[in-house]
Amino acid sequence: MTGGTLYGLGVGPGDPELITLKARRILQSVPVIAYPAPEQGDSLARAIASPHIPGGRIEIAIRTPMTPGNFPANEVYDRYAAEIGVHLSDGRDVAVLCEGDPFLYGSFMYIFARLAGVYSVEVVPGVSSLGAVAAVAGRPLVSRNQVLTVLPAPLDEQELERRLADTDAAAIMKVGRHLRKVKRVLGRLGLDEGAKYVERASMTGEKVLPLAEAPDGGAPYFSMILVRRADEVPGEVES
Amino acid sequence: MTGGTLYGLGVGPGDPELITLKARRILQSVPVIAYPAPEQGDSLARAIASPHIPGGRIEIAIRTPMTPGNFPANEVYDRYAAEIGVHLSDGRDVAVLCEGDPFLYGSFMYIFARLAGVYSVEVVPGVSSLGAVAAVAGRPLVSRNQVLTVLPAPLDEQELERRLADTDAAAIMKVGRHLRKVKRVLGRLGLDEGAKYVERASMTGEKVLPLAEAPDGGAPYFSMILVRRADEVPGEVES
Repeated sequence: MTGGTLYGLGVGPGDPELITLKARRILQSVPVIAYPAPEQGDSLARAIASPHIPGGRIEIAIRTPMTPGNFPANEVYDRYAAEIGVHLSDGRDVAVLCEGDPFLYGSFMYIFARLAGVYSVEVVPGVSSLGAVAAVAGRPLVSRNQVLTVLPAPLDEQELERRLADTDAAAIMKVGRHLRKVKRVLGRLGLDEGAKYVERASMTGEKVLPLAEAPDGGAPYFSMILVRRADEVPGEVES
Repeated sequence: MTGGTLYGLGVGPGDPELITLKARRILQSVPVIAYPAPEQGDSLARAIASPHIPGGRIEIAIRTPMTPGNFPANEVYDRYAAEIGVHLSDGRDVAVLCEGDPFLYGSFMYIFARLAGVYSVEVVPGVSSLGAVAAVAGRPLVSRNQVLTVLPAPLDEQELERRLADTDAAAIMKVGRHLRKVKRVLGRLGLDEGAKYVERASMTGEKVLPLAEAPDGGAPYFSMILVRRADEVPGEVES
Protein backbone atom coordinates (compact mmCIF):
# COMPACT_ATOMS: atom_id res chain seq x y z
CA MET A 1 0.00 0.00 0.00
CA THR A 2 1.21 3.45 -0.82
CA GLY A 3 0.35 6.87 0.49
CA GLY A 4 -0.19 8.14 3.99
CA THR A 5 -1.37 6.20 7.01
CA LEU A 6 -4.87 6.50 8.43
CA TYR A 7 -4.86 6.54 12.23
CA GLY A 8 -7.95 5.87 14.33
CA LEU A 9 -6.97 7.65 17.53
CA GLY A 10 -8.80 6.97 20.75
CA VAL A 11 -8.60 10.26 22.67
CA GLY A 12 -10.18 8.89 25.83
CA PRO A 13 -13.39 9.64 27.69
CA GLY A 14 -13.13 13.38 28.22
CA ASP A 15 -10.30 14.50 30.48
CA PRO A 16 -7.51 15.56 28.09
CA GLU A 17 -5.03 13.98 30.50
CA LEU A 18 -6.61 10.56 29.82
CA ILE A 19 -5.14 10.49 26.32
CA THR A 20 -2.31 8.01 25.77
CA LEU A 21 1.28 9.00 25.07
CA LYS A 22 0.95 7.29 21.70
CA ALA A 23 -2.17 9.14 20.63
CA ARG A 24 -0.59 12.43 21.65
CA ARG A 25 2.59 11.70 19.72
CA ILE A 26 0.65 10.88 16.57
CA LEU A 27 -1.59 13.93 17.02
CA GLN A 28 1.45 16.14 17.15
CA SER A 29 2.94 14.70 13.98
CA VAL A 30 0.12 14.29 11.45
CA PRO A 31 -0.69 17.07 8.97
CA VAL A 32 -4.43 16.23 8.77
CA ILE A 33 -6.87 15.75 11.65
CA ALA A 34 -10.49 14.65 11.24
CA TYR A 35 -13.16 14.25 13.90
CA PRO A 36 -16.86 13.51 14.25
CA ALA A 37 -19.04 16.55 14.84
CA PRO A 38 -22.74 17.26 15.04
CA GLU A 39 -24.49 18.84 12.09
CA GLN A 40 -23.88 22.18 13.75
CA GLY A 41 -21.62 23.04 16.65
CA ASP A 42 -18.46 21.74 18.22
CA SER A 43 -16.87 18.31 18.16
CA LEU A 44 -16.46 16.64 21.55
CA ALA A 45 -13.54 14.55 20.29
CA ARG A 46 -11.73 17.66 19.10
CA ALA A 47 -12.41 19.43 22.40
CA ILE A 48 -10.87 16.51 24.31
CA ALA A 49 -7.80 16.49 22.09
CA SER A 50 -7.46 20.24 21.68
CA PRO A 51 -4.65 20.81 24.22
CA HIS A 52 -2.57 18.40 22.16
CA ILE A 53 -3.30 19.71 18.64
CA PRO A 54 -0.61 21.98 17.26
CA GLY A 55 -1.63 24.94 15.12
CA GLY A 56 -1.62 24.93 11.35
CA ARG A 57 -3.14 21.51 10.76
CA ILE A 58 -5.63 20.72 8.05
CA GLU A 59 -8.88 19.87 9.89
CA ILE A 60 -11.90 17.95 8.66
CA ALA A 61 -15.08 18.02 10.73
CA ILE A 62 -17.07 14.89 9.87
CA ARG A 63 -20.52 16.38 10.24
CA THR A 64 -23.20 13.74 10.26
CA PRO A 65 -26.87 14.55 10.11
CA MET A 66 -28.89 11.84 11.85
CA THR A 67 -31.39 9.81 9.85
CA PRO A 68 -34.70 8.75 11.39
CA GLY A 69 -33.12 5.56 12.77
CA ASN A 70 -30.61 7.81 14.53
CA PHE A 71 -27.69 6.70 12.41
CA PRO A 72 -25.90 8.86 9.90
CA ALA A 73 -26.44 8.02 6.28
CA ASN A 74 -23.89 5.95 4.42
CA GLU A 75 -23.52 8.59 1.73
CA VAL A 76 -22.18 11.01 4.29
CA TYR A 77 -19.41 8.61 5.22
CA ASP A 78 -18.75 7.87 1.56
CA ARG A 79 -18.11 11.56 0.99
CA TYR A 80 -15.83 12.04 4.03
CA ALA A 81 -13.93 8.84 3.32
CA ALA A 82 -13.27 10.14 -0.18
CA GLU A 83 -12.05 13.47 1.21
CA ILE A 84 -9.73 11.70 3.65
CA GLY A 85 -8.61 9.36 0.87
CA VAL A 86 -7.36 12.29 -1.20
CA HIS A 87 -4.98 13.27 1.60
CA LEU A 88 -3.82 9.68 2.06
CA SER A 89 -3.25 9.26 -1.68
CA ASP A 90 -1.15 12.42 -1.64
CA GLY A 91 1.00 10.87 1.10
CA ARG A 92 -0.37 12.84 4.04
CA ASP A 93 -1.09 10.91 7.24
CA VAL A 94 -4.58 11.50 8.64
CA ALA A 95 -5.65 11.03 12.28
CA VAL A 96 -9.35 10.50 12.92
CA LEU A 97 -10.11 11.40 16.55
CA CYS A 98 -12.46 9.09 18.43
CA GLU A 99 -14.07 9.74 21.81
CA GLY A 100 -13.20 6.88 24.13
CA ASP A 101 -12.05 3.86 22.19
CA PRO A 102 -12.33 3.74 18.37
CA PHE A 103 -13.85 0.26 18.19
CA LEU A 104 -16.42 0.40 21.00
CA TYR A 105 -19.44 2.01 19.31
CA GLY A 106 -17.16 4.55 17.64
CA SER A 107 -18.12 6.19 14.36
CA PHE A 108 -14.53 5.73 13.18
CA MET A 109 -15.50 2.24 12.10
CA TYR A 110 -17.50 3.68 9.20
CA ILE A 111 -14.41 5.45 7.87
CA PHE A 112 -12.30 2.39 8.65
CA ALA A 113 -14.65 0.15 6.66
CA ARG A 114 -14.24 2.32 3.59
CA LEU A 115 -10.48 2.84 3.67
CA ALA A 116 -8.88 -0.22 5.33
CA GLY A 117 -7.40 -2.48 2.71
CA VAL A 118 -6.88 0.52 0.42
CA TYR A 119 -4.56 2.50 2.67
CA SER A 120 -2.35 1.63 5.60
CA VAL A 121 -4.43 1.88 8.79
CA GLU A 122 -3.44 1.85 12.44
CA VAL A 123 -5.94 1.90 15.29
CA VAL A 124 -4.73 3.32 18.60
CA PRO A 125 -6.98 2.14 21.43
CA GLY A 126 -8.11 4.67 24.00
CA VAL A 127 -9.54 4.72 27.50
CA SER A 128 -13.20 3.86 26.98
CA SER A 129 -16.16 5.47 28.68
CA LEU A 130 -16.75 2.09 30.37
CA GLY A 131 -13.53 2.31 32.35
CA ALA A 132 -13.99 6.01 33.04
CA VAL A 133 -17.52 5.60 34.33
CA ALA A 134 -16.51 2.75 36.62
CA ALA A 135 -13.55 4.78 37.91
CA VAL A 136 -15.55 7.90 38.78
CA ALA A 137 -18.36 5.82 40.27
CA GLY A 138 -15.84 3.94 42.45
CA ARG A 139 -17.49 0.79 41.18
CA PRO A 140 -15.64 -2.23 39.78
CA LEU A 141 -17.32 -3.49 36.61
CA VAL A 142 -16.66 -7.22 36.92
CA SER A 143 -14.30 -9.51 38.74
CA ARG A 144 -13.24 -13.14 38.65
CA ASN A 145 -15.50 -15.14 36.34
CA GLN A 146 -18.38 -12.69 36.12
CA VAL A 147 -20.15 -11.82 32.88
CA LEU A 148 -20.41 -8.21 31.75
CA THR A 149 -23.11 -7.21 29.28
CA VAL A 150 -22.76 -3.94 27.42
CA LEU A 151 -26.22 -2.81 26.36
CA PRO A 152 -27.29 0.19 24.30
CA ALA A 153 -30.29 1.81 26.00
CA PRO A 154 -32.21 2.25 22.71
CA LEU A 155 -32.91 -1.52 22.65
CA ASP A 156 -36.55 -2.28 23.20
CA GLU A 157 -37.87 -2.70 26.71
CA GLN A 158 -38.40 -6.46 26.54
CA GLU A 159 -34.93 -7.10 25.22
CA LEU A 160 -33.31 -4.90 27.85
CA GLU A 161 -35.24 -6.71 30.57
CA ARG A 162 -34.40 -10.16 29.29
CA ARG A 163 -30.70 -9.38 29.07
CA LEU A 164 -30.46 -7.51 32.37
CA ALA A 165 -32.19 -10.41 34.13
CA ASP A 166 -29.44 -12.73 32.97
CA THR A 167 -26.08 -11.11 33.63
CA ASP A 168 -23.78 -10.52 36.59
CA ALA A 169 -23.17 -6.91 35.63
CA ALA A 170 -24.18 -4.50 32.91
CA ALA A 171 -23.17 -1.17 31.50
CA ILE A 172 -26.11 0.54 29.81
CA MET A 173 -24.78 3.01 27.24
CA LYS A 174 -26.32 5.88 25.29
CA VAL A 175 -28.95 6.41 27.97
CA GLY A 176 -30.15 9.84 26.84
CA ARG A 177 -33.89 9.93 26.33
CA HIS A 178 -34.22 6.26 27.28
CA LEU A 179 -33.68 6.89 30.99
CA ARG A 180 -37.28 6.36 32.06
CA LYS A 181 -37.53 3.09 30.19
CA VAL A 182 -34.29 1.84 31.75
CA LYS A 183 -35.48 2.85 35.22
CA ARG A 184 -38.73 0.94 34.73
CA VAL A 185 -36.88 -2.19 33.66
CA LEU A 186 -34.37 -2.05 36.50
CA GLY A 187 -37.18 -1.41 38.96
CA ARG A 188 -39.09 -4.50 37.81
CA LEU A 189 -35.93 -6.58 38.16
CA GLY A 190 -35.09 -5.19 41.58
CA LEU A 191 -31.77 -3.97 40.24
CA ASP A 192 -32.46 -0.27 40.63
CA GLU A 193 -31.25 0.20 44.17
CA GLY A 194 -27.59 -0.48 43.60
CA ALA A 195 -27.48 1.08 40.12
CA LYS A 196 -25.36 4.16 39.44
CA TYR A 197 -26.03 6.89 36.92
CA VAL A 198 -23.02 8.71 35.47
CA GLU A 199 -22.88 11.55 32.98
CA ARG A 200 -19.86 13.36 31.54
CA ALA A 201 -17.40 11.01 33.29
CA SER A 202 -13.99 12.68 33.71
CA MET A 203 -15.25 15.95 32.18
CA THR A 204 -16.34 19.30 33.55
CA GLY A 205 -19.90 18.85 34.78
CA GLU A 206 -19.36 15.20 35.70
CA LYS A 207 -22.27 13.71 37.66
CA VAL A 208 -22.33 10.44 39.62
CA LEU A 209 -25.72 9.67 41.18
CA PRO A 210 -27.71 6.78 42.55
CA LEU A 211 -30.11 5.86 39.74
CA ALA A 212 -33.11 7.12 41.71
CA GLU A 213 -31.68 10.64 41.63
CA ALA A 214 -30.94 10.67 37.90
CA PRO A 215 -32.67 13.54 36.08
CA ASP A 216 -35.76 12.01 34.47
CA GLY A 217 -36.12 14.84 32.08
CA GLY A 218 -32.91 15.14 30.17
CA ALA A 219 -30.06 12.71 30.39
CA PRO A 220 -27.37 13.49 27.82
CA TYR A 221 -26.64 10.95 25.09
CA PHE A 222 -23.30 10.04 26.65
CA SER A 223 -24.70 9.09 30.03
CA MET A 224 -24.35 5.56 31.33
CA ILE A 225 -25.86 3.34 34.00
CA LEU A 226 -23.89 0.68 35.83
CA VAL A 227 -25.82 -2.28 37.20
CA ARG A 228 -24.67 -5.16 39.30
CA ARG A 229 -25.98 -7.84 41.61
CA ALA A 230 -24.31 -6.58 44.78
CA ASP A 231 -24.15 -9.95 46.48
CA GLU A 232 -22.12 -11.41 43.65
CA VAL A 233 -19.33 -8.90 43.91
CA PRO A 234 -16.35 -9.72 46.02
CA GLY A 235 -14.31 -6.73 46.91
CA GLU A 236 -17.23 -4.33 46.87
CA VAL A 237 -17.27 -1.63 49.48
CA GLU A 238 -19.94 0.87 50.28
CA SER A 239 -18.47 4.34 49.94
CA MET B 1 -9.88 11.47 55.51
CA THR B 2 -6.26 12.01 56.38
CA GLY B 3 -3.04 10.56 55.09
CA GLY B 4 -1.86 9.82 51.60
CA THR B 5 -3.95 9.00 48.54
CA LEU B 6 -4.29 5.51 47.12
CA TYR B 7 -4.23 5.54 43.31
CA GLY B 8 -5.44 2.63 41.17
CA LEU B 9 -3.48 3.29 38.01
CA GLY B 10 -4.46 1.64 34.75
CA VAL B 11 -1.18 1.25 32.87
CA GLY B 12 -2.78 -0.03 29.69
CA PRO B 13 -2.63 -3.32 27.80
CA GLY B 14 1.11 -3.73 27.30
CA ASP B 15 2.74 -1.14 25.07
CA PRO B 16 4.27 1.38 27.49
CA GLU B 17 3.19 4.13 25.09
CA LEU B 18 -0.46 3.20 25.74
CA ILE B 19 -0.28 4.63 29.25
CA THR B 20 -2.20 7.87 29.80
CA LEU B 21 -0.59 11.21 30.53
CA LYS B 22 -2.37 11.18 33.88
CA ALA B 23 -1.11 7.76 34.95
CA ARG B 24 2.41 8.73 33.95
CA ARG B 25 2.25 11.98 35.90
CA ILE B 26 1.08 10.20 39.04
CA LEU B 27 3.67 7.44 38.59
CA GLN B 28 6.39 10.03 38.49
CA SER B 29 5.23 11.75 41.66
CA VAL B 30 4.30 9.03 44.17
CA PRO B 31 6.86 7.70 46.65
CA VAL B 32 5.36 4.18 46.84
CA ILE B 33 4.47 1.89 43.93
CA ALA B 34 2.72 -1.47 44.30
CA TYR B 35 1.85 -4.01 41.62
CA PRO B 36 0.46 -7.51 41.25
CA ALA B 37 3.05 -10.19 40.66
CA PRO B 38 3.08 -13.97 40.44
CA GLU B 39 4.29 -16.00 43.39
CA GLN B 40 7.70 -15.99 41.76
CA GLY B 41 8.97 -13.92 38.88
CA ASP B 42 8.28 -10.57 37.32
CA SER B 43 5.21 -8.37 37.37
CA LEU B 44 3.65 -7.64 33.97
CA ALA B 45 2.12 -4.39 35.24
CA ARG B 46 5.52 -3.20 36.46
CA ALA B 47 7.15 -4.17 33.17
CA ILE B 48 4.57 -2.12 31.26
CA ALA B 49 5.09 0.89 33.49
CA SER B 50 8.85 0.54 33.92
CA PRO B 51 9.93 3.22 31.41
CA HIS B 52 7.93 5.69 33.47
CA ILE B 53 9.05 4.71 36.98
CA PRO B 54 11.77 6.93 38.41
CA GLY B 55 14.48 5.40 40.55
CA GLY B 56 14.45 5.37 44.32
CA ARG B 57 10.81 4.50 44.89
CA ILE B 58 9.54 2.16 47.55
CA GLU B 59 8.13 -0.84 45.71
CA ILE B 60 5.68 -3.47 46.90
CA ALA B 61 5.19 -6.61 44.81
CA ILE B 62 1.74 -7.99 45.62
CA ARG B 63 2.58 -11.66 45.24
CA THR B 64 -0.53 -13.81 45.18
CA PRO B 65 -0.40 -17.56 45.32
CA MET B 66 -3.42 -19.05 43.56
CA THR B 67 -5.89 -21.15 45.51
CA PRO B 68 -7.51 -24.22 43.92
CA GLY B 69 -10.35 -22.06 42.54
CA ASN B 70 -7.66 -20.00 40.83
CA PHE B 71 -8.26 -16.94 42.96
CA PRO B 72 -5.82 -15.59 45.50
CA ALA B 73 -6.77 -15.96 49.10
CA ASN B 74 -8.35 -13.09 50.96
CA GLU B 75 -5.71 -13.21 53.68
CA VAL B 76 -3.06 -12.34 51.14
CA TYR B 77 -4.90 -9.17 50.22
CA ASP B 78 -5.53 -8.40 53.88
CA ARG B 79 -1.81 -8.45 54.45
CA TYR B 80 -0.89 -6.29 51.45
CA ALA B 81 -3.69 -3.83 52.16
CA ALA B 82 -2.30 -3.44 55.68
CA GLU B 83 1.19 -2.87 54.32
CA ILE B 84 -0.10 -0.23 51.89
CA GLY B 85 -2.21 1.29 54.65
CA VAL B 86 0.88 1.96 56.76
CA HIS B 87 2.30 4.14 53.99
CA LEU B 88 -1.01 5.94 53.52
CA SER B 89 -1.35 6.55 57.25
CA ASP B 90 2.13 8.04 57.23
CA GLY B 91 1.04 10.46 54.52
CA ARG B 92 2.73 8.76 51.57
CA ASP B 93 0.73 8.42 48.35
CA VAL B 94 0.67 4.90 46.94
CA ALA B 95 0.04 3.96 43.28
CA VAL B 96 -1.14 0.41 42.60
CA LEU B 97 -0.38 -0.47 38.99
CA CYS B 98 -3.06 -2.36 37.07
CA GLU B 99 -2.70 -4.03 33.68
CA GLY B 100 -5.32 -2.63 31.33
CA ASP B 101 -8.10 -0.96 33.28
CA PRO B 102 -8.30 -1.25 37.09
CA PHE B 103 -12.01 -2.11 37.24
CA LEU B 104 -12.32 -4.64 34.42
CA TYR B 105 -11.30 -7.92 36.09
CA GLY B 106 -8.40 -6.15 37.79
CA SER B 107 -6.98 -7.41 41.06
CA PHE B 108 -6.78 -3.81 42.28
CA MET B 109 -10.41 -4.12 43.33
CA TYR B 110 -9.38 -6.35 46.23
CA ILE B 111 -7.08 -3.66 47.58
CA PHE B 112 -9.70 -1.02 46.81
CA ALA B 113 -12.34 -2.93 48.76
CA ARG B 114 -10.15 -2.96 51.84
CA LEU B 115 -8.95 0.65 51.79
CA ALA B 116 -11.65 2.80 50.15
CA GLY B 117 -13.63 4.65 52.75
CA VAL B 118 -10.60 4.59 55.07
CA TYR B 119 -8.21 6.53 52.85
CA SER B 120 -8.65 8.87 49.93
CA VAL B 121 -8.76 6.81 46.73
CA GLU B 122 -8.57 7.80 43.08
CA VAL B 123 -8.96 5.35 40.22
CA VAL B 124 -7.32 6.30 36.92
CA PRO B 125 -8.87 4.32 34.07
CA GLY B 126 -6.56 2.77 31.50
CA VAL B 127 -6.76 1.37 28.00
CA SER B 128 -8.28 -2.08 28.48
CA SER B 129 -7.23 -5.27 26.77
CA LEU B 130 -10.65 -5.22 25.05
CA GLY B 131 -9.83 -2.09 23.09
CA ALA B 132 -6.27 -3.20 22.43
CA VAL B 133 -7.31 -6.59 21.10
CA ALA B 134 -9.91 -5.06 18.80
CA ALA B 135 -7.36 -2.53 17.55
CA VAL B 136 -4.66 -5.03 16.69
CA ALA B 137 -7.20 -7.41 15.16
CA GLY B 138 -8.56 -4.59 12.98
CA ARG B 139 -11.98 -5.63 14.22
CA PRO B 140 -14.62 -3.26 15.62
CA LEU B 141 -16.19 -4.71 18.77
CA VAL B 142 -19.74 -3.40 18.43
CA SER B 143 -21.54 -0.62 16.62
CA ARG B 144 -24.92 1.09 16.69
CA ASN B 145 -27.32 -0.80 18.98
CA GLN B 146 -25.44 -4.06 19.19
CA VAL B 147 -24.94 -5.99 22.41
CA LEU B 148 -21.44 -6.91 23.56
CA THR B 149 -20.97 -9.76 26.02
CA VAL B 150 -17.72 -10.02 27.91
CA LEU B 151 -17.23 -13.64 28.96
CA PRO B 152 -14.51 -15.27 31.02
CA ALA B 153 -13.45 -18.48 29.31
CA PRO B 154 -13.39 -20.47 32.59
CA LEU B 155 -17.23 -20.48 32.60
CA ASP B 156 -18.64 -23.93 32.01
CA GLU B 157 -19.26 -25.11 28.50
CA GLN B 158 -23.06 -24.94 28.63
CA GLU B 159 -23.08 -21.43 29.97
CA LEU B 160 -20.59 -20.23 27.38
CA GLU B 161 -22.68 -21.77 24.64
CA ARG B 162 -25.94 -20.31 25.89
CA ARG B 163 -24.49 -16.81 26.14
CA LEU B 164 -22.58 -16.91 22.86
CA ALA B 165 -25.74 -18.06 21.08
CA ASP B 166 -27.53 -14.94 22.24
CA THR B 167 -25.31 -11.94 21.62
CA ASP B 168 -24.28 -9.76 18.70
CA ALA B 169 -20.63 -9.82 19.67
CA ALA B 170 -18.48 -11.27 22.41
CA ALA B 171 -15.03 -10.92 23.84
CA ILE B 172 -13.90 -14.12 25.53
CA MET B 173 -11.24 -13.28 28.11
CA LYS B 174 -8.72 -15.35 30.06
CA VAL B 175 -8.67 -18.02 27.38
CA GLY B 176 -5.51 -19.84 28.51
CA ARG B 177 -6.13 -23.53 29.01
CA HIS B 178 -9.80 -23.18 28.02
CA LEU B 179 -9.04 -22.73 24.33
CA ARG B 180 -10.21 -26.18 23.22
CA LYS B 181 -13.50 -25.81 25.06
CA VAL B 182 -14.11 -22.40 23.52
CA LYS B 183 -13.30 -23.73 20.05
CA ARG B 184 -15.79 -26.58 20.50
CA VAL B 185 -18.53 -24.19 21.56
CA LEU B 186 -17.91 -21.73 18.73
CA GLY B 187 -17.77 -24.60 16.26
CA ARG B 188 -21.16 -25.90 17.37
CA LEU B 189 -22.63 -22.41 17.03
CA GLY B 190 -21.06 -21.82 13.62
CA LEU B 191 -19.28 -18.80 15.00
CA ASP B 192 -15.77 -20.15 14.64
CA GLU B 193 -15.04 -19.01 11.12
CA GLY B 194 -15.06 -15.30 11.74
CA ALA B 195 -13.52 -15.50 15.21
CA LYS B 196 -10.11 -14.01 15.92
CA TYR B 197 -7.57 -15.19 18.46
CA VAL B 198 -5.24 -12.57 19.94
CA GLU B 199 -2.45 -12.95 22.45
CA ARG B 200 -0.14 -10.33 23.93
CA ALA B 201 -1.96 -7.47 22.18
CA SER B 202 0.29 -4.42 21.80
CA MET B 203 3.26 -6.28 23.36
CA THR B 204 6.37 -7.95 21.99
CA GLY B 205 5.29 -11.35 20.72
CA GLU B 206 1.79 -10.17 19.79
CA LYS B 207 -0.18 -12.73 17.79
CA VAL B 208 -3.38 -12.19 15.82
CA LEU B 209 -4.74 -15.35 14.24
CA PRO B 210 -7.94 -16.79 12.83
CA LEU B 211 -9.31 -18.99 15.61
CA ALA B 212 -8.63 -22.14 13.61
CA GLU B 213 -4.91 -21.39 13.71
CA ALA B 214 -4.76 -20.69 17.45
CA PRO B 215 -2.28 -22.94 19.27
CA ASP B 216 -4.37 -25.70 20.85
CA GLY B 217 -1.66 -26.58 23.28
CA GLY B 218 -0.80 -23.51 25.20
CA ALA B 219 -2.66 -20.25 25.00
CA PRO B 220 -1.41 -17.77 27.59
CA TYR B 221 -3.78 -16.60 30.31
CA PHE B 222 -4.05 -13.15 28.77
CA SER B 223 -5.22 -14.32 25.38
CA MET B 224 -8.63 -13.32 24.06
CA ILE B 225 -11.06 -14.38 21.36
CA LEU B 226 -13.31 -11.94 19.51
CA VAL B 227 -16.55 -13.28 18.11
CA ARG B 228 -19.16 -11.61 16.00
CA ARG B 229 -22.00 -12.38 13.66
CA ALA B 230 -20.42 -10.96 10.51
CA ASP B 231 -23.68 -10.20 8.78
CA GLU B 232 -24.80 -7.97 11.59
CA VAL B 233 -21.84 -5.69 11.41
CA PRO B 234 -22.06 -2.57 9.35
CA GLY B 235 -18.72 -1.14 8.50
CA GLU B 236 -16.93 -4.47 8.51
CA VAL B 237 -14.27 -4.97 5.90
CA GLU B 238 -12.32 -8.07 5.12
CA SER B 239 -8.66 -7.32 5.50
